[in-house]
Amino acid sequence: MNDQYFMDLALTLAKSVSGQTNPNPPVGSVVVKDSQIVGLGAHLKAGEPHAEVHALQMAGEKAKGATIYVTLEPCSHHGRTPPCADLIIEKELSRVVIATTDPNEKVAGKGIERLRNAGLQVDVGIRKEEAQHVNKQFFHFIEHKTPYVTLKSATSLDGKIATVSGESQWITNEEAREDVHFYRHTHDAILVGVNTVIKDNPSLTTRTPLGGKNPTRIIMDTHLRTPLDANVVTKDDAPTWIVVGNQVSPEQKEPYLAYPHVEIIQLEESSIQVKTLLKALANRKVMSLFVEGGAEVNGSFLKARAVQQIITYIAPKLIGGKGAPTSIGGDGFANLSDSLELSIISAEKMGTDIKIIAEPKTIS
Amino acid sequence: MNDQYFMDLALTLAKSVSGQTNPNPPVGSVVVKDSQIVGLGAHLKAGEPHAEVHALQMAGEKAKGATIYVTLEPCSHHGRTPPCADLIIEKELSRVVIATTDPNEKVAGKGIERLRNAGLQVDVGIRKEEAQHVNKQFFHFIEHKTPYVTLKSATSLDGKIATVSGESQWITNEEAREDVHFYRHTHDAILVGVNTVIKDNPSLTTRTPLGGKNPTRIIMDTHLRTPLDANVVTKDDAPTWIVVGNQVSPEQKEPYLAYPHVEIIQLEESSIQVKTLLKALANRKVMSLFVEGGAEVNGSFLKARAVQQIITYIAPKLIGGKGAPTSIGGDGFANLSDSLELSIISAEKMGTDIKIIAEPKTIS
Repeated sequence: MNDQYFMDLALTLAKSVSGQTNPNPPVGSVVVKDSQIVGLGAHLKAGEPHAEVHALQMAGEKAKGATIYVTLEPCSHHGRTPPCADLIIEKELSRVVIATTDPNEKVAGKGIERLRNAGLQVDVGIRKEEAQHVNKQFFHFIEHKTPYVTLKSATSLDGKIATVSGESQWITNEEAREDVHFYRHTHDAILVGVNTVIKDNPSLTTRTPLGGKNPTRIIMDTHLRTPLDANVVTKDDAPTWIVVGNQVSPEQKEPYLAYPHVEIIQLEESSIQVKTLLKALANRKVMSLFVEGGAEVNGSFLKARAVQQIITYIAPKLIGGKGAPTSIGGDGFANLSDSLELSIISAEKMGTDIKIIAEPKTIS
Repeated sequence: MNDQYFMDLALTLAKSVSGQTNPNPPVGSVVVKDSQIVGLGAHLKAGEPHAEVHALQMAGEKAKGATIYVTLEPCSHHGRTPPCADLIIEKELSRVVIATTDPNEKVAGKGIERLRNAGLQVDVGIRKEEAQHVNKQFFHFIEHKTPYVTLKSATSLDGKIATVSGESQWITNEEAREDVHFYRHTHDAILVGVNTVIKDNPSLTTRTPLGGKNPTRIIMDTHLRTPLDANVVTKDDAPTWIVVGNQVSPEQKEPYLAYPHVEIIQLEESSIQVKTLLKALANRKVMSLFVEGGAEVNGSFLKARAVQQIITYIAPKLIGGKGAPTSIGGDGFANLSDSLELSIISAEKMGTDIKIIAEPKTIS
């Protein structure tokens, strides 16, 4: 047993709450004394105690002289809860092991400084990469002040999302579709274009065997063409934000306002720019966005290079057809040298399908 | 050590000569006495000795009373070489272990029968599936009397083979391109459409670090538009067969006939049907065909359901674009229920790319 062993446990705790802590990051913590685990904790929900508070509460008197492992630097500021660094000092721990510093400017090393000033041994950087990966949505949001964007697509082996006649239901298998619902659960918001709403009338809710958190539903809809009888309007399972351009009139908007869960976000531009949209969402604390297309919407995100993760499901089928649509439409890049270069994170079989996770080589 | 152990060795020998035995199948053989290997053999080239002959020659006097393992039923007919079953009987072996029977009607159980009639113990079916897989091209050819077709494509993660402006060079990495050359080596013939010849002027030869067997080059070219200065015409590294429709005149064909390695195969139809083409190739002993497109050619093979294996390389790039071409063009299937259902055999990272091997669920 070593530092890595206990930090891995703390990371497992952090991962387990990924998606339910917005706008805070998922954090895990373990308190160890004489190689025995005396406390475990995770930050469960914004406004509730941080991971360290839970772990120290479990440890009780045993915290004195113990080591605390935490996946993110303990906070040093008074937010909705008192600073964790102070609590650790107060409980008289002897050592703090931290996976990664907190990029949030309110913390950013100040927590570590306070602990060291109080005479505690502080070791930083154990499993740093893994911790930053668990917190990738949070780190991206803090650094860029825009949501972390995951682009999802499901195609045949020859890259088609539908046949030439537009038939597209059930291209991928049930296992892949269930996996998609897990991503909905772990993202703050889900985004589709109005054409998808008109064509498929999706609910855009999280449907996993044990339920799940519904993301905020966002419709890119320049001219406000979302039907008033669409599921995203009539069903209040989750908030629905319809993002429109500046030419939409108050009269057009009026009938939607009868639905308390529906909000219309009007941008000051006639055609919606992805960058503007993302800024508007960031202002509303959307830290992570799951983009489910269709092809034109995906094309806009690609052209804006506003993609941090690409999840692709490939079904074992050949559909063929020069005119059959693909996952990313729009204009595309004319030159290969402009195309978005990726790193393949993983490629694996998922039931009969294949799942590929990729990230841009340079985070955009 | 058991039967599986020695048969696996025989299969390794068979695999090692895959691609160089046409029109015969690759076969391996091992002779074992008192658990010691006393003979090893493989069929190296049509017209040369069969695997059993090599293995028995190596065994010499030790063959008497030994067991011979062979990946395919020993032949019982006089072809270009005498029947192997007779040789095994003559050398007084006591037992024959066979992975799979030979579907060729000249053999088809007759070899086994002859051995059993001579009093030898014959066990059939050890590693049967693996042996049929090693011999899949041969088995397909015998059963369907058409070449085994492998369809290759290389796309971006969003399924594009080029940008909207047509730029397509080097989408995949060097490792994937070298892998393609291995497939060229292990197929009797390679097929492209005339548009690919006009646009890319490929040599269609096998270029691996240690050389390799060049496949026969086949151009689908209904109206005989292959340029006379194309590499496939001017360079005689391999035979070039240009397949044309019935409206091509003798005058049109005349200038090509100056090249001894170039042959024009004229079909009795105005537009080339894949099934007719495959029959013509089978008559010329093409047992395996590697189809490298482009999109229209691939589309024709898909529509004809004349595909036994699909090799797909996916490069870590997003190109986007509604008008960017995909690997399989043509009309495509209008209904999802008509699409060609596949089984994914493997999906793995190949350097920075991904390589997927798939086969139709029901061999067409």
